[in-house]
This record gives sequence, structure tokens and C-alpha cells, in this order.
Amino acid sequence: MEKRILLTECADATGLIAKITDTCFNHRLNVIRQDQFASHEDAKFFMRSVLEGDFSESEKIIAEIRSRLPEGARVSLDDGHRRRLCVLVTREAHCLGELLMKAYSGALNADIVKVIGNHEDLRALSEKFNVPFECYENADYPREEQEVKVMEAIDACSPDYVILAKYMRILSPKFIRHYPLGKLINIHHSFLPAFMGAKPYYQAFTRGVKIIGATAHFVTDNLDEGPIIEQDVIKVNHRYDPDTLAKAGHDVEQMVLLRAVNKVLDDKVFIHGNKTVVF
Amino acid sequence: MEKRILLTECADATGLIAKITDTCFNHRLNVIRQDQFASHEDAKFFMRSVLEGDFSESEKIIAEIRSRLPEGARVSLDDGHRRRLCVLVTREAHCLGELLMKAYSGALNADIVKVIGNHEDLRALSEKFNVPFECYENADYPREEQEVKVMEAIDACSPDYVILAKYMRILSPKFIRHYPLGKLINIHHSFLPAFMGAKPYYQAFTRGVKIIGATAHFVTDNLDEGPIIEQDVIKVNHRYDPDTLAKAGHDVEQMVLLRAVNKVLDDKVFIHGNKTVVF
Amino acid sequence: MEKRILLTECADATGLIAKITDTCFNHRLNVIRQDQFASHEDAKFFMRSVLEGDFSESEKIIAEIRSRLPEGARVSLDDGHRRRLCVLVTREAHCLGELLMKAYSGALNADIVKVIGNHEDLRALSEKFNVPFECYENADYPREEQEVKVMEAIDACSPDYVILAKYMRILSPKFIRHYPLGKLINIHHSFLPAFMGAKPYYQAFTRGVKIIGATAHFVTDNLDEGPIIEQDVIKVNHRYDPDTLAKAGHDVEQMVLLRAVNKVLDDKVFIHGNKTVVF
Amino acid sequence: MEKRILLTECADATGLIAKITDTCFNHRLNVIRQDQFASHEDAKFFMRSVLEGDFSESEKIIAEIRSRLPEGARVSLDDGHRRRLCVLVTREAHCLGELLMKAYSGALNADIVKVIGNHEDLRALSEKFNVPFECYENADYPREEQEVKVMEAIDACSPDYVILAKYMRILSPKFIRHYPLGKLINIHHSFLPAFMGAKPYYQAFTRGVKIIGATAHFVTDNLDEGPIIEQDVIKVNHRYDPDTLAKAGHDVEQMVLLRAVNKVLDDKVFIHGNKTVVF
Repeated sequence: MEKRILLTECADATGLIAKITDTCFNHRLNVIRQDQFASHEDAKFFMRSVLEGDFSESEKIIAEIRSRLPEGARVSLDDGHRRRLCVLVTREAHCLGELLMKAYSGALNADIVKVIGNHEDLRALSEKFNVPFECYENADYPREEQEVKVMEAIDACSPDYVILAKYMRILSPKFIRHYPLGKLINIHHSFLPAFMGAKPYYQAFTRGVKIIGATAHFVTDNLDEGPIIEQDVIKVNHRYDPDTLAKAGHDVEQMVLLRAVNKVLDDKVFIHGNKTVVF
Repeated sequence: MEKRILLTECADATGLIAKITDTCFNHRLNVIRQDQFASHEDAKFFMRSVLEGDFSESEKIIAEIRSRLPEGARVSLDDGHRRRLCVLVTREAHCLGELLMKAYSGALNADIVKVIGNHEDLRALSEKFNVPFECYENADYPREEQEVKVMEAIDACSPDYVILAKYMRILSPKFIRHYPLGKLINIHHSFLPAFMGAKPYYQAFTRGVKIIGATAHFVTDNLDEGPIIEQDVIKVNHRYDPDTLAKAGHDVEQMVLLRAVNKVLDDKVFIHGNKTVVF
Repeated sequence: MEKRILLTECADATGLIAKITDTCFNHRLNVIRQDQFASHEDAKFFMRSVLEGDFSESEKIIAEIRSRLPEGARVSLDDGHRRRLCVLVTREAHCLGELLMKAYSGALNADIVKVIGNHEDLRALSEKFNVPFECYENADYPREEQEVKVMEAIDACSPDYVILAKYMRILSPKFIRHYPLGKLINIHHSFLPAFMGAKPYYQAFTRGVKIIGATAHFVTDNLDEGPIIEQDVIKVNHRYDPDTLAKAGHDVEQMVLLRAVNKVLDDKVFIHGNKTVVF
Repeated sequence: MEKRILLTECADATGLIAKITDTCFNHRLNVIRQDQFASHEDAKFFMRSVLEGDFSESEKIIAEIRSRLPEGARVSLDDGHRRRLCVLVTREAHCLGELLMKAYSGALNADIVKVIGNHEDLRALSEKFNVPFECYENADYPREEQEVKVMEAIDACSPDYVILAKYMRILSPKFIRHYPLGKLINIHHSFLPAFMGAKPYYQAFTRGVKIIGATAHFVTDNLDEGPIIEQDVIKVNHRYDPDTLAKAGHDVEQMVLLRAVNKVLDDKVFIHGNKTVVF
């Protein structure tokens, strides 16, 4: 029997779970896992249901569920296609390397279909794993044109998600709005909202913090302000300088990005205003 | 409007969530939070629903839900009474102290109605917080008789839960079976199943571990083998000796016990064979 | 044999360790633990040595060490007196409670000699533990006068350290400069530098972070910017609201403050510009 | 100026630090970092000093230091050669992959000179990174002979350390004794001493623990009982089955192994009986 994930998102109201699960039951779909959340501050309802059964009438089921929910409800049932990732990089290898390794060993539930760099540094690494690498060097194009090249390269491979794996160039609002919210995932090398902007490890060193971290988030117009998917930290001390902070931080970055991508691929992440619901 | 927690536990089957939420919906009870889990290995279903509405017909609702579930289902709706804790102690103050402080500051959702010691050491502390203290010294009674005294003292205060807050005496099977599984909660001073038995900090020192921990668990006949509710750890290093390990460990113990008790008081913990489901 | 802690701080130079340990050796003092750090960015040397031996000539030893070190060196040998703490509070009990409990059970290497509040709320708690409580209510005095009262109350008990255990009032520069840097220790209810200022749990909720934390730091003129002694965090998720974030955060706050105070009492903390060296 | 690491290990005595640092000072070697530990239970002294200066007379310096220390002292000064690692694997890619990635990106302070498998699975991965792979399949040789083949393959590449990166075959005492203690480093897929032996994730699932971990340790005759270098853990819950526990555990394994190898390569790890001192 097949398994599919049903995602529901709408204004909160009484009886939502009953209506959705009743519809599933009527179509002989068994709920094997269900997570639900209703927000207090703005009365939004979010539910993720792992269903098992026969999905030949899935369009009909979705329509039936939608008809029983409040106006404007979003209902989706994944179609089981293998997800496609496009990864943007600059020079640092650790985040891309972790994704490539997990894809290689079968521990990533997606295909990395293309890597795009604004430097040539990571071509060799990508090609080792037979992933096409395209490069649009900052130096070779005017800023705007370079971005257009990158967008075209992204769109040409039809990815489900674009992963900014230490892509060290600020994206224009035009670029960001070209993609639906939730499609661009960034790893930021600090425990946001501490140390926003550039050189966070140098900032952390200067401030003398005893813990550093990393943050994976969806990208929005507001730099470093998008909905946070995952964060983690490690303890540091006075012996760390900016370089050793960065080296230690890289290990956190790659793990935080990996976990965030895995959760998104498992359809466990809803965007809720400027926050996320992560089941 | 009132809030109550509905707990359901039964053999897994299709349509369980639909049936339960439909019944709630029919009685105009709104589900404001729901967590559900079905185990693979033995096909058990567990659900916790936070309901809001009018509970004047709660007996009828429970009966109706039960009638729609598989044979042997357990269904309960908390009656909203404030829970009563009885705490058993020996000499170490930190776990009792943490519970007393949180009860005092209003951060514990229960009353500590009695403290029972097998040493006099913690009488003064209990009485500072106006909690009656009874002492049955190991030295004053034959072993079996001392245990009977303790049982009688427990039963006299009708507690919902008995918290073994570093009660350093092994309980007999007779004592343990006198209480239903789930009523006795113990804090064990190690990261179980490592370092079972006595002197875990000495064992940790001898083994040279780099992390120590604590485990809160329900008490069963098998010493240190009951269902685990909560665990946590801290990093240590070669500079720690058995005393400083114990001192550092105490902070973990008190926090792990507190969190476990809070989860039990929030009705978030189901016992599942020798394991727990913690929502 | 007696144990004492020698602290040395000076401009970095070659041979410092050799000179200091040689002097100790000549006076038959055995080094049983030694930690040392030299900063790169400003070439400062810090050393903490635990010595064992006869300290009847300690003044002479200190003078001798100082004479062999660069101009301006700070050399100190603790005189073994039991440290005195004065704790400032407002309404929240958890940080004060943790300090009182640890002092009560002998796990704090200091005496809490006085608690000063700007509300009456924690009088009962302090007095349970036989610690004098003085109250200077915000409402009863003009702002400046209230601060003078608090300063006088502090100075009257000659504390080694003043612990701001959730004292919810901003201190004036005059107050802060009245005490030497390193004497005032604050617990800040966030993972600094994230969420500086008031209402950090509300800020954390609004930002949707997945981790919250607490920071213990020395107090300086720049609010929330003093040298950080200790930080810790816990993971949270979308289910937390500002109240449950605060409740969970309190447990981190009390532990971070306790650990910071313990490290300061162990003479393990040096101030290094706006940072700390913590051995 | 050159930097070298001086390691000293001997019976504890008064004046050791003074004698060692004095000798360094006399040879115009500056101590830029120093860590020292003396054990209580068996009075052993361990010190690691990072020295800066002219090492042309290093043999003489070592001899001079040794002559001033108790009988049997071990004194060593690294000769600055780049370390060589030989990695033993079976089928799982994550630990080898992490080491290869870090070596590739320049974040590992050593060369991986050979990978040896008892299955062919990881040949392709090793060869992607231009590391020679040799395979001695369990099925192709009698047990003892296979081990001899592996030993010969190891010895042929003269490694400084042999990393068992999920090498899933128990090594004979003969094999283990062929190498000096401290040369073989293993990653064990559990938080030792919990869940020793095979199938730790299945054991963790059955026991219902709320935390799982990994342990990197030196290999000794006693399986899973060698000196622990590094441990770490992650929180899990009832939703994990043995497979998802293993998947989550792999991320911890690779990080714990990486950190342990980095510490060994930095000469920060001393073996102290069945424990370690890690600076």
C-alpha cells in the first residue's frame, strides 16, 4: 500500500480534524501519523497527516476535504515524485559536501540536480559526484546580469528547492520574489538574530560569547529575517579566535542545513507568517 | 470555557481519529491541541486531545467514545482536580528543593502534600515550605516494617503520584506492586542504561566518560529498568573527580526530575510496554 | 596543607610561566592545577594556579612574583575568607531560590548575607532561609533616591559580589561605577546579543526562534553589553507561547546564573576587555 | 618562527612546571599555550605546551627536560611531519565520507593515505577523492588470514593512526597488540557504556531511551572498553524506530569521530590508564 502526505492549512474552526479524518476514513485511507497545530495569536490551523491506502482518486479526495474547510484553505497531497534540489555555493565546501555525501549514500530523500557557483572552487567537488556545475563569476558579469544568469540556470533544472549552501552574495528583492516563499532555503552562519549580516564569527569573537550557532531559514526580502526552520549551537570559550570559531561553526552549519532540508523534504515544515511550524 | 484533557489508548485500527474527533465535534467540544502516535511493532494507538467546551456530560462523552473504539480501549478525561504529590527522600536536598521551590513560586501544577524521609535530614527544609515531613529511619525498624510504615504514610495522604527524589533505598516488589504502574516516579543519577545500580558517579569516573546524565523513569519491579520519561546530560572532562561529577550531576538530576514531573502532570506521558510515549 | 589560588594578569612576555612557577617552587608551594591563557589580539597573559603549601609568607611571595613580571602586573593570592553575596531581586523567585537552595545544602561556596528587593514579594522566601531581606520599593522613593538606598544597603553588608538575580530595574551609570568592574553579576533572560533589552521571551516568540537561552555577565555601563561569563540554551518549538517560553527559560536562567556564580567563586574568571577568560 | 608541541608525562612531583618551563625559557622557546593536569588517584602528571622559537637543538632540549624529571618520564616534541591516516571501513559511508570531505577541503590536519575495506562498497567513494582503496572481503579469506592481509595493508602505508570508521568486524587480540596503544581509534555507535556490543540502535529502541549517542575511543583488547576520547548525544523520542534512530545516530557518529581525530592530530589527547586526558 502506498503512503502519501496530506497537508492542510486554513483558518482555525471547530471540527476541522473531525472533518478531515472523516473524509479520509470514508475513502479508506488510514492515518498512520498525524500532527496538528492551531496558533493562538492569529487562529491558523496546520495539519500534516501521513496516509496509507489507495490514492487513485486523490484529486477527488482533495476537493472533498477543501469543500468542508473554511474559505481559502490550502490542501495538498504529495504526488510521490522524487524532489529535485539545486544548490548555490561560493567557496566553502562543507555544506555542499554534506549534502552530496548524504545524497550519495542514500540518506537524502532527494536528487541534487545542479550546483551553481559564483566561483569555480567547488566545480571539482560537484563533478566528483556527477552533479553538473555551472559557474557565473561575480567578476565576469555586471551584478544584475549575473543574477539573471543564476536565475536562468536555476529555472532550467526545475528544482523543487533551491539551497543556498553558503552562497556569499546578497540576493536582490527581484531574485527573491521570482520564487515562491518556501522554495529558497539559506544557512546563516550565526545563531540568528544574534550577529546578523557579514562576518558573524568575527562578531562572536569580539563579543566574547560562550556559544555559537547556525540558523537555516527560508529566504525573504528581509535579509536574515526569514522564517527559521532549524537552529543549533555549540559551546566555545576564550581560546577560540575567529578562524577556529569558523571551523567549529562549519560543523554546526552543515548539520543544521542538513536537518532543515530533511524536514522540508519530509513535508514537515509549514510557513506561518514570519515563523515556521515544524512537525 | 473550560479545558480538559482526553486520553485515549487502544489497539490500532483505521478511523480512530475520525471517530474520536467526530464524537467531540458532536458534543461541541473544540480540539485545541491533539497529539497521536501509533506504534509499528505492536499496533497500539495513543492520543492526547486538549478539548475546550462544556464538560457537564463528560461521562456520557467518554462512554460514547469508548463504544466506538476497539475492545479494551482506555478513555479518560481529567476531572480538573489539582494533583497531589508525595515525595520520598533520604539526605540529598537538591531534587526535593527544586520541587518545593517550583511549587512555592507557582511553577508546579500540583501540591506537595507530604515529604517522607528515611533520615531526618530534610525535615527542616520541608517544614520551611510548610509541607508535613514524616520520618521512618532505616535504623529504627526492621526493613520490611519500615517499608510498611512508608506505604501507610503514603496512602494516608492519597497522592496522585509518589516522587522518589533521591530516595536511596531499594524498594521491595511488594511495595512496588502495591501501586499501579505509573504512580511511582524515580530519578536515577545516571544516563540509563549506563551505570545502573549504586555509585554511578564513581562508575562514570572510573570509566572516564566525557558525558554524564540523569534519567527519570516510572518504577517497576526491575530496578532501573522502568519506562524512561526524560533524560538529559552534561559534558564533563578529566578534571572531574567523583565528588565534582556528583555535584554537576545534581543539577541535571533536579532538572530532569522536574521536567518529567511536569510532563506527567500535563498528562503528556503514556506508558507503552517498557517504554513511554511523551507528547 | 593549605590550598590557595594565585591569579596573575599582565602584558604577555616570554618566560612568564617559568618565572612564576619558579618562585612558587622556591617557596615550596606545589602547583596542583594551573591554567594559562595568552591573547593574540592584545598580548595579555592570564594565569590561575592552585597552590598547596605553607602560606605564612604570602605577602612576600606576591611581591617577589610581581617584581619578576612586566610593569603593571596584577598578582593576587586569595586569603581564604568565605565569600559574601548580596542578592538583588524583584518578583521572580527562581534565581534567588536556586542560590538559596544551593547555599542551604552546602553546594554554594559562599554565604548569602542579604537579599534586597524593589518589591516585597521575595521577603518570605529569603526569611525562610534566615537571610535578611530589605525592601526599597520603586513606588516609595524617587528613582535616584531608591538607588542610593539600595547602594547603602549593599555597602552595609560588605559583599564580595552583588548578584542581580532578575532585578528588573535599569541601574544608573552612577550606581554601576560605584562598584569595581567584576563585582556586579547579572543574569539576562536571553541568549545575548540576541534579544537585548526588555521582553526577550516575547521577542523570541515573535521571531520564531527554535532555541532560547540565558546569559550571565558582569555589569558595565553599557546595558546587556558586559563581559559574558556563561551561557546556555534549550530547544523550543512552535508550540511555545511567550509564557511557556518564559517558564522554560527560567530553568536555564537559574542554572546559568548558578554556574557563573560558582565559577566566579572559584576564582576561575578573568575580565579581558569586554570579554572573559573562564578556566 | 616555528611552532611545536611539547608533551610531558611522568609521576607527579613538586616543581615540574617550573623545571620544564625554565628549560624552555633558557632555550628561548616561548610558551604560547600550556595545559597541565595532575591526577589525584594515581599521581600522574600530564602537560602539553605549545612552544614557539628555534627548534634546531630539539634533541638536546628534550634530553635536558627529561633529565630534570622523575625516572620514567615521557617527553616528546612533535617533528612537524604531516600525519598519515589509514581508514578501515565496511559498508557505511558517513564516517569515511566526513573524513574525506574535511581532508579535501583542508579542514583536516592530516592526509588520508589509504582506505581498507572488508567489502567493496566504499571503493568508489575513496577513489573519487583519489585515495587508494584495498579490499579484503570476509568471504574471500579465512578469518585469521583476512586479518593478516589487513595488517599488512596497514603497515605498508606507515600510518600514524588507524581509524576504524565503522569497521564492522571484531579485531583479534593479536591484531590489536600488533599496534601501540593510542594508534587505533574506533567510533562506537552508542553512548558507551550503554548498549555495548552489536545493534545498539535496536537496543536503544527496545529500551525506549530519550537520548542516543556515539563514542570515539582508543582500541584495546577489551571490546568497547578502551579509553574514551569524545562523546556526544542527540535527543530522540518515541517516534523513532531502529532505522530512524540509526540515521540520526550516523550524524552524531561522524561528528564525534571527526572531533576525536582532530584532537588526536592536535596532540591534545593523553592516555591515562583506561581513561584519557583531553586538553
